[in-house]
Amino acid sequence: MESSEIKQLFNDAKAWVLEAGKEMRESVNKPYQINTKTDHKDLVTEVDQETEKFFAEHIRKKYPHHQVLGEEGFGDDVSSLDGVVWIIDPIDGTMNFVHQKRNFAISLGIYVEGEGVIGLIYDVMSDILYSAIKGEGAYKNDVALPSLQKGRKLEDSLLGMNNFWSLPNRRVDETGIHDLVRKVRGTRSYGSAALEFAFVAEGIMDAYLTMRLSPWDIAAGIVIVNEVGGLTSRVDGTDINMLEANTVLTCNPNIHKEIVSEFIREK
Amino acid sequence: MESSEIKQLFNDAKAWVLEAGKEMRESVNKPYQINTKTDHKDLVTEVDQETEKFFAEHIRKKYPHHQVLGEEGFGDDVSSLDGVVWIIDPIDGTMNFVHQKRNFAISLGIYVEGEGVIGLIYDVMSDILYSAIKGEGAYKNDVALPSLQKGRKLEDSLLGMNNFWSLPNRRVDETGIHDLVRKVRGTRSYGSAALEFAFVAEGIMDAYLTMRLSPWDIAAGIVIVNEVGGLTSRVDGTDINMLEANTVLTCNPNIHKEIVSEFIREK
Repeated sequence: MESSEIKQLFNDAKAWVLEAGKEMRESVNKPYQINTKTDHKDLVTEVDQETEKFFAEHIRKKYPHHQVLGEEGFGDDVSSLDGVVWIIDPIDGTMNFVHQKRNFAISLGIYVEGEGVIGLIYDVMSDILYSAIKGEGAYKNDVALPSLQKGRKLEDSLLGMNNFWSLPNRRVDETGIHDLVRKVRGTRSYGSAALEFAFVAEGIMDAYLTMRLSPWDIAAGIVIVNEVGGLTSRVDGTDINMLEANTVLTCNPNIHKEIVSEFIREK
Repeated sequence: MESSEIKQLFNDAKAWVLEAGKEMRESVNKPYQINTKTDHKDLVTEVDQETEKFFAEHIRKKYPHHQVLGEEGFGDDVSSLDGVVWIIDPIDGTMNFVHQKRNFAISLGIYVEGEGVIGLIYDVMSDILYSAIKGEGAYKNDVALPSLQKGRKLEDSLLGMNNFWSLPNRRVDETGIHDLVRKVRGTRSYGSAALEFAFVAEGIMDAYLTMRLSPWDIAAGIVIVNEVGGLTSRVDGTDINMLEANTVLTCNPNIHKEIVSEFIREK
């Protein structure tokens, strides 16, 4: 794809993200319907659904040959990454949206022939847009993000991780996770995968680790983290498959190998 | 103490907190010395020390008969809560200060004859001051915080807790903690006890639980959480002792008894 076409895509995506975010700031304090999906922890609101519809409609109108892969089902039944695919989480961190009325994000990644080309993560309530175009660096609003710090050691690192992976669970040996938590300087948990990717890109966390995420949770984040020299993989070090759920480790490259080889034992 | 005297104390404390915070915003991007205290996770910076000195000097000059209890040792050797005691953490969340350059707070509580009367928690980088005077409600900047939601259920709650307490440790049976993490809707960890108290007061988290905190971490938070109808105790439900380290549970009162009686088993 030509660089001018990518720039046009980026500008459209950015404009729609900012417009959807503005709507959301107005909705967050109005009454809205909250439903649960698989269990009482898996929330979805009318706002998630309306926002995804908003994106799907705009994309289909302007880019009828592109595919849309979205969390709430208003996209296409995407079975290949051929062509251009928009990968959208209308509200990443719905629990924060509901309980905190902040700390949630719109996450939008655009993949071309399987490769992440554009990433946008919009912290809606703070009005902070993390963005990247492949090969052109990452930005926090209009400020370029510096490359991740060289020589970062695991014992000086902050790790983002949901507490849940320290509990006995069916995906990972929790005793390795315990050793990792003891090794790092500290752990944090913010409740939005997209924002945790953005924080890794910003260098305010050194790693974010989780044992299950969907493509829309990570599509934008991967592009942004890449642009500052970060590394994203499955927790065994292999490549992410953007058509299915994955385990995910995104981090400063200095600590990637040690986390993968010394601490993570998948079940 | 007369209400007018309390108001005067509050105004002085607030002015000094805002002044110290302004200095800190200017220091956060300058080079400063970082040292470790008990281990490599226990950081202290020059800025912590200078800020505590700033408070101690102002307090001693204007209120020579008051005691000062501070984290960094520039206060007094406080062995009783008689009279007026200022309890200060110059930077709560030093690791965030160092790694994130945000998400830290100045915490200042004023206790009169052992009773918490004034609480100030200043989220320095966001310029958000949480404050309370006993009996007069709690505020986020100039906006009164509403009382905590009635009828909150544990399964719909967000719990703030450091991941560490899910690991085998010498203070609490981690299996009870695991059951609690599974029961609640979600967990969060922000790395600043003072801010986590503020978030409980704001109702964006329903509980904050930890197995060891010092008086300066919690003195302000207790006063602020009280004013919105929240409850703070040791994790066995008994009263906090403001002269020593404590286990701490601060929460919506609807879920206090269930957490204490069903999930926490101290060692």
